[in-house]
Amino acid sequence: MSSEQSSEAAEVENPTQSKKAAKKEAAKLEKKRRQEAEAAAKALAAATIDAEDPLKSNYGDVPSSDLRSKEVSGRKWTEVGNLWEEVKGEVVLIRGRAQTVRGVGKNIAFVVVRERGCTVQCVLTVEADKVSRQMVKFATSLSKESIIDVEGVVSVPDTPIKGASQPVEVQVRKLYRVSKALPNLPINIEDAARSEVEIEKALQAGEQLVRVNQDTRLNYRVLDMRTPANQGIFRVQCQVENVFRQFLLSEGFVGIHTPKLMAGSSEGGAAVFKLDYKGQPACLAQSPQLHKQMAICGDFARVFEVGPVFRAEDSYTHRHLCEFTGLDVEMEIKEHYFEVMDIVDRLFVKLFDTLNETCKNELEAIQRQYPFEPLKYLRQTLCLTFEEGVKMLQEAGVEIDPHGDLNTEAERKLGQLVLDKYGTEFYILHRYPLAVRPFYTMPCYDDQTYSNSFDVFIRGEEIISGAQRVHEPDFLTVRAETCGIDVKTISTYIDAFRYGAPPHGGFGVGLERVVMLFCGLNNIRKTSLYPRDPLRLTP
Amino acid sequence: MSSEQSSEAAEVENPTQSKKAAKKEAAKLEKKRRQEAEAAAKALAAATIDAEDPLKSNYGDVPSSDLRSKEVSGRKWTEVGNLWEEVKGEVVLIRGRAQTVRGVGKNIAFVVVRERGCTVQCVLTVEADKVSRQMVKFATSLSKESIIDVEGVVSVPDTPIKGASQPVEVQVRKLYRVSKALPNLPINIEDAARSEVEIEKALQAGEQLVRVNQDTRLNYRVLDMRTPANQGIFRVQCQVENVFRQFLLSEGFVGIHTPKLMAGSSEGGAAVFKLDYKGQPACLAQSPQLHKQMAICGDFARVFEVGPVFRAEDSYTHRHLCEFTGLDVEMEIKEHYFEVMDIVDRLFVKLFDTLNETCKNELEAIQRQYPFEPLKYLRQTLCLTFEEGVKMLQEAGVEIDPHGDLNTEAERKLGQLVLDKYGTEFYILHRYPLAVRPFYTMPCYDDQTYSNSFDVFIRGEEIISGAQRVHEPDFLTVRAETCGIDVKTISTYIDAFRYGAPPHGGFGVGLERVVMLFCGLNNIRKTSLYPRDPLRLTP
Repeated sequence: MSSEQSSEAAEVENPTQSKKAAKKEAAKLEKKRRQEAEAAAKALAAATIDAEDPLKSNYGDVPSSDLRSKEVSGRKWTEVGNLWEEVKGEVVLIRGRAQTVRGVGKNIAFVVVRERGCTVQCVLTVEADKVSRQMVKFATSLSKESIIDVEGVVSVPDTPIKGASQPVEVQVRKLYRVSKALPNLPINIEDAARSEVEIEKALQAGEQLVRVNQDTRLNYRVLDMRTPANQGIFRVQCQVENVFRQFLLSEGFVGIHTPKLMAGSSEGGAAVFKLDYKGQPACLAQSPQLHKQMAICGDFARVFEVGPVFRAEDSYTHRHLCEFTGLDVEMEIKEHYFEVMDIVDRLFVKLFDTLNETCKNELEAIQRQYPFEPLKYLRQTLCLTFEEGVKMLQEAGVEIDPHGDLNTEAERKLGQLVLDKYGTEFYILHRYPLAVRPFYTMPCYDDQTYSNSFDVFIRGEEIISGAQRVHEPDFLTVRAETCGIDVKTISTYIDAFRYGAPPHGGFGVGLERVVMLFCGLNNIRKTSLYPRDPLRLTP
Repeated sequence: MSSEQSSEAAEVENPTQSKKAAKKEAAKLEKKRRQEAEAAAKALAAATIDAEDPLKSNYGDVPSSDLRSKEVSGRKWTEVGNLWEEVKGEVVLIRGRAQTVRGVGKNIAFVVVRERGCTVQCVLTVEADKVSRQMVKFATSLSKESIIDVEGVVSVPDTPIKGASQPVEVQVRKLYRVSKALPNLPINIEDAARSEVEIEKALQAGEQLVRVNQDTRLNYRVLDMRTPANQGIFRVQCQVENVFRQFLLSEGFVGIHTPKLMAGSSEGGAAVFKLDYKGQPACLAQSPQLHKQMAICGDFARVFEVGPVFRAEDSYTHRHLCEFTGLDVEMEIKEHYFEVMDIVDRLFVKLFDTLNETCKNELEAIQRQYPFEPLKYLRQTLCLTFEEGVKMLQEAGVEIDPHGDLNTEAERKLGQLVLDKYGTEFYILHRYPLAVRPFYTMPCYDDQTYSNSFDVFIRGEEIISGAQRVHEPDFLTVRAETCGIDVKTISTYIDAFRYGAPPHGGFGVGLERVVMLFCGLNNIRKTSLYPRDPLRLTP
């Protein structure tokens, strides 16, 4: 300030000089003054930036040792998802990722912090004794996806915040980096979270946005998983399993675990993963079929299992995986395989109801990226016979073998016809031709070309296969022989029925497929956390 | 009756004969009468057995076609376990196994029917228009373990029934065989259900009862499963999993499924099952370690998994399997691995409480065959440091390496010392020497010879291993190198932490081990439905 004061004094001291000379002198002084002022400002800025910041303990990297269980401080972290207007004025501590970081000049920075899919805007504004310029600079230097602790005061802004899930702001007082993310990420979360609609819209406006393809997503799954849609998908998946278990437990089922390592090759199938087990030939279970049926013969009456199923098939479709999570059910039946279908009906109506009720946020998050119509289903599930299904297809002009299986195209077509006629996207098709079912499927009592079996469809795609099983060992032997199976290879299976076996039936569901079809997704790789297909064995 | 009447008339007609002659005549007549009576009875019996029994539709084999979903009759079956005094006088229909069959003369038969471990005595008494001799004969011809439908009237006998779980009897009216068991079973359920105590007691009384050994049991698991103890064990196992899931869900955890098929060899370990995956070398996951940690880095914050774990170890102990069910947990931690131990504490106290409350019948059934004392545990789980444990052992005269691992013997000994001193059979030992833990275990901040890790013990045996993990990629690299691991082979693992990784920790539990130790069983093969060990790959 001293140099400015002296130049002002000089002007006052020479009032009699000519205007021109005065002007010249003034300009000269002004220039000098400006130069001096700038130098002083620079020196000041340099001094304050370089100098020990008295607030420097309020930001920076958390020392490594502090992240190694050094102490229990008693501090409480608030979840980002719990930051609502109610906590206005309170000081909160949150931990999350720096989703976006934006500086406005040198005095203000915005950091959007994300935790478990919820986001909140945090603001740093330079203010004496509270936030220094260095702290703002530290904030703007944070690489996206770094993990930070933010302490600050919750405020409610006058205008609604865009780009954050929570309606409040955090006025930052302390900011610590817990974990640094690489500055250049292989995929950006905002790119991975973008919908096709958004990309198309931008393209029409002449802007080319990044589209992250499926393979890249899976290669960097640890990043891809963080999108709101994926956070939703795997929480929905968890809920599907919960409802499955809780419903069956309430119906007297017992959860069991059967081995995945099997001697020889299971069910005589070709598509098994073979391995060496301590010198013995072994393979991975293609289904818990044998063991869940043995549990029924072992008096457990009603059992279910949730576990991996291995299929070494060369299927490159949108709905096949080499490893998936099987939801398996097996139960005694008193008289009729309808008893099994009744469980399917009530289980799935309960499932869909529960998902719609309890997973609203998750389903909305999925819909934002992958728009879908809510599933149409009836209070009492529609059951059609295979013959009725064939007739519907034939009447619609589809050529079809009445004793063959439905191909994917016919299934889709039938799904559309059923939706048009009955208003449901979930239905059961039963009494399949015997020839297209496994040898252990019980034939119909009145016509051995049909069987006591069923498939269940969501949006025109099969999610469940089920049936009554043959429980008489002699008849089972005949059925196996008829199907060209070497009975010696399945003697353990047949013998299980020689010590008294109740009539029984069951079904198997693919967890990933249920989630995919409920959410109308186009690829099963979207609903498997770490999918395995013929080409993918990582991560 | 006609022959008896005529001989009586003869005696009356000769009142004047001498006593001797009269006696002789009487004896003669008596003999004749007896012979005639016997012949008549035989003829009658033969006639009724051979003749068309008017009641023959009330018993016999159910025709095969009726067991193939012929019709839905609307009949209702009552569960054996629901037969109490309240249903006295009612007509019930039950389905179960003929556990024991006993004829008393030709007119009475007892059949004990078992369903889901509950048993009821069914009685057939010859009675006109209700039960024929042929029906009694059919009942006594039933092979044990055959499945039958019994219709009858519930009655409450004057004297309590021995050898059945239900206090009522069923007066049989109809009896149908649904499924025939082989007449000679490889193991009898009553032999398989016998306790060691019973066998020893009989031996002292000079009687040698059949003892079914472990291998025979497992070879015929479908029969062995039917014992009350086994029915109890696997229902307890199901409940362990339920509590595990429900507790974690209530604490904000998400259930996930990670792949069991892995590229290369997981964690660089030797004890993996290798296989060929479409031409690529692959192996079965030894734990979900990598993938559950990736889920944490993928923003799921708290995850758990229930799934198979594969260990190709040559362990022939009572507590190792080559395939078991892993209960895995991984979670972000804010400051300290105590946060993980806190979950363990509350989860297991909840688990033990729930088992004791909800599995009373199951635990009693197990106890009858395998007596055990209820587990002693504290409301707040005891936590000792490894150093404290070592000190206790040393003070008890056990020689021990303070920076080595505890062997099985030392663990048992410490379990005893802890029980004596603190009155608990469930406790946590933490701050293990770093050298005995996996490379990804976080060292202690103050002493790198120790680690932020813990083991948990039940009855002196380890059931859980847990720790804080190293979440800094550079430090993880150093730790891997220090442990002699080729960093290139675990680059996927290390890279997962480069995009921002929260401090985190977790633990793994063996489901079979929890059940074994809670129930004080001596062999893990008792708590695995179809165990896999180095010598067993079937059934």
